Amino acid sequence: MLDIAKIRADFPILEKQVHKKTLAYLDNGATTLKPNQVVSAVEKHYKEECSNIHRGIHWLSERATESYEATRGKVKELINADSTDNIVFTSGTTAGVNLVVQSYGRNKLNAGDEVIISAMEHHANIVPWQMLRDEKGIVIKVVPVFEDGSLDMEAYYSLISDKTKFISIMYVSNVLGTINPMQEICDKANELGIPVLVDAAQAIAHMPVDVQELNCTFMVFSAHKMYGPTGVGVLYGKTEYLEAMPPVTGGGDMILSVSFDKTVYNVAPYKFEAGTPNIAGVIALGAAIDYIQSFDWKEVEEREEELIEYAHEQLQEIPGLKIIGTAKNKSGAVSFTMKDIHPHDIGTIVDRSGVAIRTGHHCAQPLMESFGIVATARASFAIYNTKEEVDQLVKALKKVQEIFA
Amino acid sequence: MLDIAKIRADFPILEKQVHKKTLAYLDNGATTLKPNQVVSAVEKHYKEECSNIHRGIHWLSERATESYEATRGKVKELINADSTDNIVFTSGTTAGVNLVVQSYGRNKLNAGDEVIISAMEHHANIVPWQMLRDEKGIVIKVVPVFEDGSLDMEAYYSLISDKTKFISIMYVSNVLGTINPMQEICDKANELGIPVLVDAAQAIAHMPVDVQELNCTFMVFSAHKMYGPTGVGVLYGKTEYLEAMPPVTGGGDMILSVSFDKTVYNVAPYKFEAGTPNIAGVIALGAAIDYIQSFDWKEVEEREEELIEYAHEQLQEIPGLKIIGTAKNKSGAVSFTMKDIHPHDIGTIVDRSGVAIRTGHHCAQPLMESFGIVATARASFAIYNTKEEVDQLVKALKKVQEIFA
Repeated sequence: MLDIAKIRADFPILEKQVHKKTLAYLDNGATTLKPNQVVSAVEKHYKEECSNIHRGIHWLSERATESYEATRGKVKELINADSTDNIVFTSGTTAGVNLVVQSYGRNKLNAGDEVIISAMEHHANIVPWQMLRDEKGIVIKVVPVFEDGSLDMEAYYSLISDKTKFISIMYVSNVLGTINPMQEICDKANELGIPVLVDAAQAIAHMPVDVQELNCTFMVFSAHKMYGPTGVGVLYGKTEYLEAMPPVTGGGDMILSVSFDKTVYNVAPYKFEAGTPNIAGVIALGAAIDYIQSFDWKEVEEREEELIEYAHEQLQEIPGLKIIGTAKNKSGAVSFTMKDIHPHDIGTIVDRSGVAIRTGHHCAQPLMESFGIVATARASFAIYNTKEEVDQLVKALKKVQEIFA
Repeated sequence: MLDIAKIRADFPILEKQVHKKTLAYLDNGATTLKPNQVVSAVEKHYKEECSNIHRGIHWLSERATESYEATRGKVKELINADSTDNIVFTSGTTAGVNLVVQSYGRNKLNAGDEVIISAMEHHANIVPWQMLRDEKGIVIKVVPVFEDGSLDMEAYYSLISDKTKFISIMYVSNVLGTINPMQEICDKANELGIPVLVDAAQAIAHMPVDVQELNCTFMVFSAHKMYGPTGVGVLYGKTEYLEAMPPVTGGGDMILSVSFDKTVYNVAPYKFEAGTPNIAGVIALGAAIDYIQSFDWKEVEEREEELIEYAHEQLQEIPGLKIIGTAKNKSGAVSFTMKDIHPHDIGTIVDRSGVAIRTGHHCAQPLMESFGIVATARASFAIYNTKEEVDQLVKALKKVQEIFA
């Protein structure tokens, strides 16, 4: 069993008083808190091995390079990649999607080619494709979402045709919490030889993710949503794809040689990592992965299922509250609306009770539109959350009701 | 007068023993060390106000947003920009150059248009332009460098023509230490209405930089070369340019509204900051700027001039040592070669004496070529360096000579 008290002790910010109330941090879908182990890794890098990497031969630089590259190995293990060469460090999920769109998309997709995304995508997996559409004339096809927040898989199958040249879908919805049938999505794509990008931003801290089992072409996620630092992300790509893709960003470290006449690029993953990267951040991502790997996935998933089920039960007791997203398989987030009360007001009022939730469109405006709403309030969970925090939320929501009664 | 002992106490890593010798960190051109104040700012963010920004309305998110945006104000003051709207946060200098090339360059430059760079540019200011050349057929014109490492300004004037549509030049050379006549370069460009990008990566921690006085169109630099964290940079741009430029990266926070039919971008600088940024890093950059601003620029410059002069004097005493870059105005770096000894060997051997220098092409292969060499050894300085450290380097170099004698 997970020792929640011990886990919570790793996150001293959880003891913080907000408006003289104990903080209940239920905004993990936006960013998770960071355990001491991760903050210490940043501190250790700066205080004990601060240096630039790869190009240095002095002691500090060698230490820093080792620590930086060690994270690549940890990412490989975490997602069960074949090789560290498949792991590209980015500045975050958004940068990862954009890299694929601008490198693979811009070079391989042509006018009329269809890209399938879903109606529940985050703007990070919509806008880059729209930019490519405006530039190249590709066509974006959208898998609709059922009323319960699950993906319309029949529509997915019917949208696929010989015009489909790319599929880009999120693993877990940041708004609805829906766990999409990623294996099924990938299987169909592989059957037809269509590359698939999996946006795993909201999955990576919540369930075991296996790129070889999924057999996805690309996967992207962010460190800061898995107990790691801001400003770091990962792009996983299959070898034959990464090798064939041109770099998008030019600069130091991504080249083998430069002359004014002829420049030769480095191999993957380095050709995609121009300039000095977020060294401290990548090293701290390594600490975050160590942290995640210190738990048993089964226990993590069970605990979260329990918490989400409890949140559903308790929230449904509140008259006028409607849960947005009631799919069978859910992880991480519970979105809801309250009759006649704007989510912004909900968020502002519960904040006075120390409860941190997110309200708004959650960077998923098309999804909001498909539900006929403009915003939701969202409670989202991580490994340190408790039923007591759900109770604190529910109590705060009752206050919201009283105020608006 | 600068209190160097007090300054050094802010960088406890300076007390480190490397190979049982006291560290002499002379690799500041690659990255500077970080003072306690900067490391503490990262720690404080994660331990006291960890949250995502902009979209949150709860207490933590409001604090984090305030701290993040406060840095924009500090950058504005540091470089004397007109408004915080001119300050775009990037992941570093390389990302800044690429953003300008991919947004302004790709959209405004056409086949045959000429871009002027210099022979001493860092790969980060060469390769992105080469990528645009391959895509659009622009022409890259290169201002040559004299034997002493100064820019051939007559050539600069003669290269400018009505075909010149962009000028992109570094303020201070990371290899030679040359301070280029940036005011003169900008004045000429402005006279002809040609936009100028100033790569200030090696200038920003060493001298006062004033974008309004320079009247440059763009400026880029990195936090990690000014006592700040890795993974953060700044792009300054004039309002009329930033407003007219399309975003390069799509995602959250850079939009006003998204629908599958029509997406409306946010205004500058936000339209260039897609996704969750390096929040902790930007906040720590603010601490780095506070740190820099706590000193008197005149004293910083005088101290560094003294140190560089001393290094020149002492290094010249070593038989067979040749300083590469002897221009009148120098800052930050002293590069050198030693007869018949490969710089890689120099670096490895002085490391055994605790001296951290960089050796190699310093991401400036074309410059190496113009000097007919493949690599240099480079000692580069920051505010905490001392004459004793120069002596330690000189002593170590004498050992190198003994070994190769």
